[in-house]
Amino acid sequence: MTHLTIALDMMGGDHGPPVTIEAAVLAVKEFPHLHLFLCGDLVQLQDGLSGYADLPLERLQLVSTEQVVSMDERPSAALRSKTRSSMRKALELVEAGEADACVSAGNTGALLAMAYYVLKTLPGIDRPALISSLPTTSHKKVYLLDLGANVNCDSEILFQYAVMGSVMAEEVEGLTRPRVALLNVGEEQIKGNDQVKHTAQILSSVPGINYIGYIEGNDIFTDKADVVVTDGFVGNIALKACEGLGKLIITEVKRVSGKNLMTRVMARMALPILKKIYARVNPDQYNGASLIGLRGIVVKSHGNASSDAFLYAIREAMQEVARQVPNKIKHKIETLLMERP
Amino acid sequence: MTHLTIALDMMGGDHGPPVTIEAAVLAVKEFPHLHLFLCGDLVQLQDGLSGYADLPLERLQLVSTEQVVSMDERPSAALRSKTRSSMRKALELVEAGEADACVSAGNTGALLAMAYYVLKTLPGIDRPALISSLPTTSHKKVYLLDLGANVNCDSEILFQYAVMGSVMAEEVEGLTRPRVALLNVGEEQIKGNDQVKHTAQILSSVPGINYIGYIEGNDIFTDKADVVVTDGFVGNIALKACEGLGKLIITEVKRVSGKNLMTRVMARMALPILKKIYARVNPDQYNGASLIGLRGIVVKSHGNASSDAFLYAIREAMQEVARQVPNKIKHKIETLLMERP
Repeated sequence: MTHLTIALDMMGGDHGPPVTIEAAVLAVKEFPHLHLFLCGDLVQLQDGLSGYADLPLERLQLVSTEQVVSMDERPSAALRSKTRSSMRKALELVEAGEADACVSAGNTGALLAMAYYVLKTLPGIDRPALISSLPTTSHKKVYLLDLGANVNCDSEILFQYAVMGSVMAEEVEGLTRPRVALLNVGEEQIKGNDQVKHTAQILSSVPGINYIGYIEGNDIFTDKADVVVTDGFVGNIALKACEGLGKLIITEVKRVSGKNLMTRVMARMALPILKKIYARVNPDQYNGASLIGLRGIVVKSHGNASSDAFLYAIREAMQEVARQVPNKIKHKIETLLMERP
Repeated sequence: MTHLTIALDMMGGDHGPPVTIEAAVLAVKEFPHLHLFLCGDLVQLQDGLSGYADLPLERLQLVSTEQVVSMDERPSAALRSKTRSSMRKALELVEAGEADACVSAGNTGALLAMAYYVLKTLPGIDRPALISSLPTTSHKKVYLLDLGANVNCDSEILFQYAVMGSVMAEEVEGLTRPRVALLNVGEEQIKGNDQVKHTAQILSSVPGINYIGYIEGNDIFTDKADVVVTDGFVGNIALKACEGLGKLIITEVKRVSGKNLMTRVMARMALPILKKIYARVNPDQYNGASLIGLRGIVVKSHGNASSDAFLYAIREAMQEVARQVPNKIKHKIETLLMERP
């Protein structure tokens, strides 16, 4: 396999270098063709790396940066004032062609704003989207987008999201003609708001997208579709509502578990399973999310991510590099724009 | 307590008379001041009632209707052609002042369309809303609206929803100055789409509403607010996504339970608890939902509801009658419209 380079924002996330360094070390050991740019505070990075033996230092290039984007910083403020941050530098390495992708566990809003500013969108794409995969009852994955990159989406943007989601399912999941659905309040054609109805018309008119119609919120998880498209307002709220429900269920099981010996034993056994399931439905935490539609690959790991989750995000970025996702999106949108009546 | 009359759509729901009759019988036995109009097919109703002894027949008035609105009928078709249906008749009894409220387990879309047509909205209210309560981690309830009555909501309608939700929390839950929040993709003021931002401005300007700001999807369940306001598109999808997640978790626990004796025992104990929790977070099934903003009280029980759930919906309707919810909404909106700058 050929040389592959990823720029890591080492300072992002709630835990910073201890977690990102461990993930970086695991990654270069797992993938002999992987090169990493480690962007962050030089002293902290050198300190952290000194704890590891036998490092392939020729594949770990430290990039000294002075600033850190904090987790609660306003995206506009970060964009304006954090031009010498680890996050910004990692994105600039992608823009300059020195890295093939960037991975960050930092502030999502700031990452979106900076990535959009530094990398720009692909031709034919107006706005980037945040996409992730969720589990289904059949143990296949379903891609859901947009998870909050854009709260105002007209039908053109939703169409572009459908195209991007379809490419992700084809390239990253390896599906042939992935089933693309629009999230709606009912399955009948007359249902929904104007944007959704108009998007349905556009999608029905392009043979290059395997558009299967509307699905309702409960069917996100039932393997009816491979890609579920919605605007960032709805996608974000639906995903977070699920996250909240997952936490509520875990809290309830813990509460019940205090009642007597029987329920205590039961809960002790049930909780790990529930937590595992919860983790699967909480992609922000485990799977990470990709920013797509940009002229470069950016993967977002959860702020509270473990080194395993950050490593997962690195693998995800590598997969998108190998499959040349931005190029495929660019070609797909060009083809489809020609197909459209 | 004074005489109270509720009109029941006996033919609605997946199970029809067997379930609705049992609930009606339980209700008149539980509440000596309750009178019921039982709207439906006379033969089926008489047949069903003949199985019960000691019925207070003077409080059970049969109303013969010829048509039934089916569960998959299009609302517009039902509105046009089912003018002699049990659902329509129950609503007309409310409109005529003969009944204080109507309860149906029938087709939600048809019920919404018919109720809107027959009862009309209150002065100051442009569109009715579908509201229900959800559990929180602190075991208090939170009201969520709109659950799908209107997919296109401007800031005026969202403002009216906030007023109606606030009245429901005050009157039905007995809260003083219930905390009203807007569902959004972040808590910062700059977040969200134009409708949400404009609604926030309106709500901040009226002292009569205890508006606490934005909350995110995961905080629906954390007792941050007593009323969560959103448009019917988002509310419906968020609620159904939670329903889908609940089912996924139950499926996963069942799947895991097949693996070995230990997990089988565990799952057999965990499942009833999970199902109970799931039922609590699936208000459409258990709590029912109210149509509010109309000049009459309409409560929707789930189509697949048991007699217990239908009885719960009758109790909910009785509570709304006792607290004169439509009147309170009318007065509240009048007061607030005068408060607004």
